[in-house]
Amino acid sequence: MEEKETGRLEAFSDGVFAVAITLLVLNLHLPDALKDDNLLRRELFAQWPAFAAFVTSFATIGVMWINHHRLFTHIKRVDTPLMLLNLLLLMLIVFVPFPTALLAEYTVQPDQHLAAFLYCGTFIVLAICFSLLWRYASYKNRLLDKKADPEAVQAITRQYRFGPLFYLVAFGLAWIYVPASIAANLLLALFFALPGRKPPHTEPGTLSEQGE
Amino acid sequence: MEEKETGRLEAFSDGVFAVAITLLVLNLHLPDALKDDNLLRRELFAQWPAFAAFVTSFATIGVMWINHHRLFTHIKRVDTPLMLLNLLLLMLIVFVPFPTALLAEYTVQPDQHLAAFLYCGTFIVLAICFSLLWRYASYKNRLLDKKADPEAVQAITRQYRFGPLFYLVAFGLAWIYVPASIAANLLLALFFALPGRKPPHTEPGTLSEQGE
Amino acid sequence: MEEKETGRLEAFSDGVFAVAITLLVLNLHLPDALKDDNLLRRELFAQWPAFAAFVTSFATIGVMWINHHRLFTHIKRVDTPLMLLNLLLLMLIVFVPFPTALLAEYTVQPDQHLAAFLYCGTFIVLAICFSLLWRYASYKNRLLDKKADPEAVQAITRQYRFGPLFYLVAFGLAWIYVPASIAANLLLALFFALPGRKPPHTEPGTLSEQGE
Amino acid sequence: MEEKETGRLEAFSDGVFAVAITLLVLNLHLPDALKDDNLLRRELFAQWPAFAAFVTSFATIGVMWINHHRLFTHIKRVDTPLMLLNLLLLMLIVFVPFPTALLAEYTVQPDQHLAAFLYCGTFIVLAICFSLLWRYASYKNRLLDKKADPEAVQAITRQYRFGPLFYLVAFGLAWIYVPASIAANLLLALFFALPGRKPPHTEPGTLSEQGE
Repeated sequence: MEEKETGRLEAFSDGVFAVAITLLVLNLHLPDALKDDNLLRRELFAQWPAFAAFVTSFATIGVMWINHHRLFTHIKRVDTPLMLLNLLLLMLIVFVPFPTALLAEYTVQPDQHLAAFLYCGTFIVLAICFSLLWRYASYKNRLLDKKADPEAVQAITRQYRFGPLFYLVAFGLAWIYVPASIAANLLLALFFALPGRKPPHTEPGTLSEQGE
Repeated sequence: MEEKETGRLEAFSDGVFAVAITLLVLNLHLPDALKDDNLLRRELFAQWPAFAAFVTSFATIGVMWINHHRLFTHIKRVDTPLMLLNLLLLMLIVFVPFPTALLAEYTVQPDQHLAAFLYCGTFIVLAICFSLLWRYASYKNRLLDKKADPEAVQAITRQYRFGPLFYLVAFGLAWIYVPASIAANLLLALFFALPGRKPPHTEPGTLSEQGE
Repeated sequence: MEEKETGRLEAFSDGVFAVAITLLVLNLHLPDALKDDNLLRRELFAQWPAFAAFVTSFATIGVMWINHHRLFTHIKRVDTPLMLLNLLLLMLIVFVPFPTALLAEYTVQPDQHLAAFLYCGTFIVLAICFSLLWRYASYKNRLLDKKADPEAVQAITRQYRFGPLFYLVAFGLAWIYVPASIAANLLLALFFALPGRKPPHTEPGTLSEQGE
Repeated sequence: MEEKETGRLEAFSDGVFAVAITLLVLNLHLPDALKDDNLLRRELFAQWPAFAAFVTSFATIGVMWINHHRLFTHIKRVDTPLMLLNLLLLMLIVFVPFPTALLAEYTVQPDQHLAAFLYCGTFIVLAICFSLLWRYASYKNRLLDKKADPEAVQAITRQYRFGPLFYLVAFGLAWIYVPASIAANLLLALFFALPGRKPPHTEPGTLSEQGE
């Protein structure tokens, strides 16, 4: 039986994901003391871009955690390049609250797109990092479990191949209409929440997926 | 022996609970430099709603963690819908510091109820999320330990059935008198801290509960 | 072999300790842009109470973590009262950054003692909580490992008996001279960092301590 | 088979590393509402020292985590001095966001070096702490795994011997030109990311390294 070496790497990554995802709440600003409930309600509704950005970033980081979890059910060994790639990925996760806050503040200006570019750009780079990490670990099964299901591995590779391209579409939408770009990011989070489909001609013997 | 797959999901959730519960302290504001102890004491006493909200939110998040822990002593398997339901639950946990801060600021205004509505409303949705997560996992023992004690499972189901309704009462109280609503939330935290009672006619053979 | 049930309780507590101890750094304030290094140096030196409070609180929370770790090498089972006592203890740990910030701001005023009282008072209540938690868990070996070394258990009980009293002395010193009280808290952290001494007539057979 | 006692120490340390590394993002300041994208772009570019300090500190803390992980693949036992040395190390890790913020604010002033001294000084003390921790644990294999590879142990000792000196060079560069000193710190992070080289005459039988 092969021992799993990735325990502490996963624990540290879980911690970073958990802190970064929780810091997002600091982007929701408390309205100054207002005299009645109507003013407070109006003030809260005016903050809708902050809430939309909070939900989108939370969903994106959360789903990226789900993907990190999925990759490391197959990765069993650790080496220095993997730790550095993982660190790069975590640096971008930690960075997310900053473009989220920018987006929340600048999304209401109809002629401003820079915040949305930075926001989508961060996710493009994150998708590339995920791709690199997976390619490095899965190349010739370098760091994978020797018993890893080849079809499950291939399904992840297929799903990740076009990840950065999908985020590029969201980036493009930011040029036209920022709220549409936020919605596209939310949809992409949903897409990556689902596990990659296996190649179509391999239905028999898919038992190994159920525990994923 | 059945392997437990939920390790990393629990570790990530523990991290999010831990960060969210600790961020509550940032809602306690430092009084500006005051010239003597009497002024400082008065200033600190005037902040009582912030302290009450801190204690109530800490107790609620803490007890929700206890319940999360209780559910996952029975849940042994993980699938994508469970991860998404768990993520939704965590998003609401992460959100709690925001309505807590709102409540702390607006609870002293006798004619303002909106902050308390938002506060209690968050807990209603959280109670619904817990119910959904448990129902999904326990439906036909989908994701539960095969050796899970059916009575312990049923006790949780019974306790959670009325959870959202109880929080609705606290919501109603916010309409009448906000501090009463905060007290009701504290009482509800205490109620959910206790494990659900098992059906009355099954006293013999309750050995399986003691380790829970 | 007895299974350890406290894994998740420890993980959640580790998370809370880790976040609370790290939030202490937010109490160190950045001086506003100053024109030369001499002004900056003076400004940083003027902040010495903030640094002293940072070090003292870090040492105290850190040593309380060491003690939590020590207790849970013996505690093997979990029940609802233990979880609630642990939650109470964590609430006070989470609260520590607030009196630390107060102390940092008010320690320089020679005639102000309230911040130091609140600071030392928090530690008294924390010491009481530790005592209660240990007494509850160790009473008739309720939740301890069946193979727990009785002398190691007794050594902890002895050390904790006077813990609250020691912190009361630091509280008393705050009445006379605040910096002396901070120094006393630092010394107490060091005292509790060391494991309790075993009863003097039991030197033979102390092998079981070395791994602690 | 020797049981590993360091589980909780590693979990707590992982938590502290994760929170400290994530708090670095709070040093990136949101520009005030600006009327057009050109102003925003200029404002963000003007913040380059904050971004450079973010990346450098993230890399340094991250690589220090990798080193902590590397040490604890060999350390198997825990005693009180090790816990205190580890606590000292964590206190410095927690402190890093403060000099990072200072550096970000003062690096643009050509005649100010104090912030860079404090920044590099923190890393010198951190390097000394790592050295002390490793020397204490590895002295006569005090706390190491009995099966620890002597060559891997020696490789770490060799790499750490000059660690503080290397950081002293970065400190010296801060005297001359602050950005060069930041770059030197980044390079040092990269150097410590790589595992220490084993003594040259021991190429045969290096199989034990691959799993590191």
